[in-house]
Amino acid sequence: MRLAAFLYQGQPGVGIVSANGQSIQPLAAPAAELALGALPLVEALVEGRALPASHGPALTPGQVQLLAPIPRPRRNIFCVGKNYHAHAREFAGSGFDSSAKSGGDIPADPILFSKVPECVVGPHHPIRIPTAVSTAIDYEAELCVVIGRGGKGIREEDALGHVWGYTIVNDVTARDWQSRHQQWLMGKSFDTFCPMGPWLVSADEVDGQNTQVKCWVNGEERQNASTRDLIFGIPKLIATLSAGITLYPGDLIATGTPVGVGIGFKPPKYLQAGDVVKIEIDGIGVLENRVE
Amino acid sequence: MRLAAFLYQGQPGVGIVSANGQSIQPLAAPAAELALGALPLVEALVEGRALPASHGPALTPGQVQLLAPIPRPRRNIFCVGKNYHAHAREFAGSGFDSSAKSGGDIPADPILFSKVPECVVGPHHPIRIPTAVSTAIDYEAELCVVIGRGGKGIREEDALGHVWGYTIVNDVTARDWQSRHQQWLMGKSFDTFCPMGPWLVSADEVDGQNTQVKCWVNGEERQNASTRDLIFGIPKLIATLSAGITLYPGDLIATGTPVGVGIGFKPPKYLQAGDVVKIEIDGIGVLENRVE
Repeated sequence: MRLAAFLYQGQPGVGIVSANGQSIQPLAAPAAELALGALPLVEALVEGRALPASHGPALTPGQVQLLAPIPRPRRNIFCVGKNYHAHAREFAGSGFDSSAKSGGDIPADPILFSKVPECVVGPHHPIRIPTAVSTAIDYEAELCVVIGRGGKGIREEDALGHVWGYTIVNDVTARDWQSRHQQWLMGKSFDTFCPMGPWLVSADEVDGQNTQVKCWVNGEERQNASTRDLIFGIPKLIATLSAGITLYPGDLIATGTPVGVGIGFKPPKYLQAGDVVKIEIDGIGVLENRVE
Repeated sequence: MRLAAFLYQGQPGVGIVSANGQSIQPLAAPAAELALGALPLVEALVEGRALPASHGPALTPGQVQLLAPIPRPRRNIFCVGKNYHAHAREFAGSGFDSSAKSGGDIPADPILFSKVPECVVGPHHPIRIPTAVSTAIDYEAELCVVIGRGGKGIREEDALGHVWGYTIVNDVTARDWQSRHQQWLMGKSFDTFCPMGPWLVSADEVDGQNTQVKCWVNGEERQNASTRDLIFGIPKLIATLSAGITLYPGDLIATGTPVGVGIGFKPPKYLQAGDVVKIEIDGIGVLENRVE
């Protein structure tokens, strides 16, 4: 099942996207819930409640403007740093880690930080470079886990049963802020720094542990890796997070980015106004955002 | 003005606390807003709307059970690491920084991280040691800023105009998780790790830049410092955060803890079941929590 949030004739809506992505069936969701996008739909499904009834005829993608499927998460998005082997080496080699303050090459334990909910934007929404504050803005293509059933102390062997599905995020990062302020929250949370979409896909339709994450900037391939290469896989991430923190339906875990980010090039290839970042994850779709 | 959230005869309520703390006037807040505690009251005041009318007779503190004044913040709580000179030295001297991964003694720029909203608990609620996960649990007494008028790109000279008021938080921390996972989110966010209270105090009644923060464990004084000793003062923190992140009414910024935390002792004095942590900040009041 694929769930999307969108604008149609200027009004917010949610709906079910067909398997080929060419048709969206709007649902009669309560008006008060529309600002939360597909989040109340996930909660309903997790609790065994029915989805709202269909509302009007099916639409084509061209008739709607897709929004982030969860436009305003209920709390900060959990994110994982340096979680692909080749990216961890690239990051260390970039000089970012020259003070060793983020622990060298391959982390022994997951590095978890967060992005504020308000930095989420949808497909087609621009990524804005805050030029007065930073121009060292980098892209990070990531598979994002959407938690279904919540819990605490979830064991690795049970963890996939708590995954409702997946989406794509671009974990946009101001590298200078990430380094200068040691903890990564700020450099990861500037307004527009979390493009998300194009929709949510349930876990029965995509194997998050074995899918391909690709990223292009202006058509030039920058990232192309399988989630099989994650240092800490999805079960380990869920078990680690839930050891001390209760997880809730709709929680989001961005699983980390593969090798090929801008800071890995010499000189770094940071984003510039006019660039287009396109991310594709097999089984999910395409997330494309222009940089302003 | 002091705003509190409480349970009275088993029902949630909000009210205005008298200047001497001995009387609480309940307000007729909409039932749908009560789970948010005093947050909708702050939002109303910031927007120039009237507070709800009084509702029933004034109560004494003994008649109510105080809850966290903002029991469920709308996003993660912003927190500042190593923000008192003497504490930064103590922290470096504890061996925590042996790999230099959090940047040595005195940070050159504010270290900002977050705690999840769901770890907030009220006065009188126990701090639970997750013994299967960590026993290196430490207290951190902190002045917490409550943002009033939101904004972005707020200048230091304008920042205090965006402060609605203050409360107290205990930034409880699992030191082993904080160190092992490099980014501090998890070790700071375990369930019950953010006692908050006893109420909110508006900025006209307390000078956050010049007040005393004190902490006792089982009656033994552990922390006692003035916020005049902050490395990065409140205006600098607000200017830094809002440079790239839009701030909203009700956002919370825990400003860092003074010297005297458990990890600073040799051997460390971590919290044990049965301990009582009492924090007092002049002009605000007392936050006291038992450890389980």
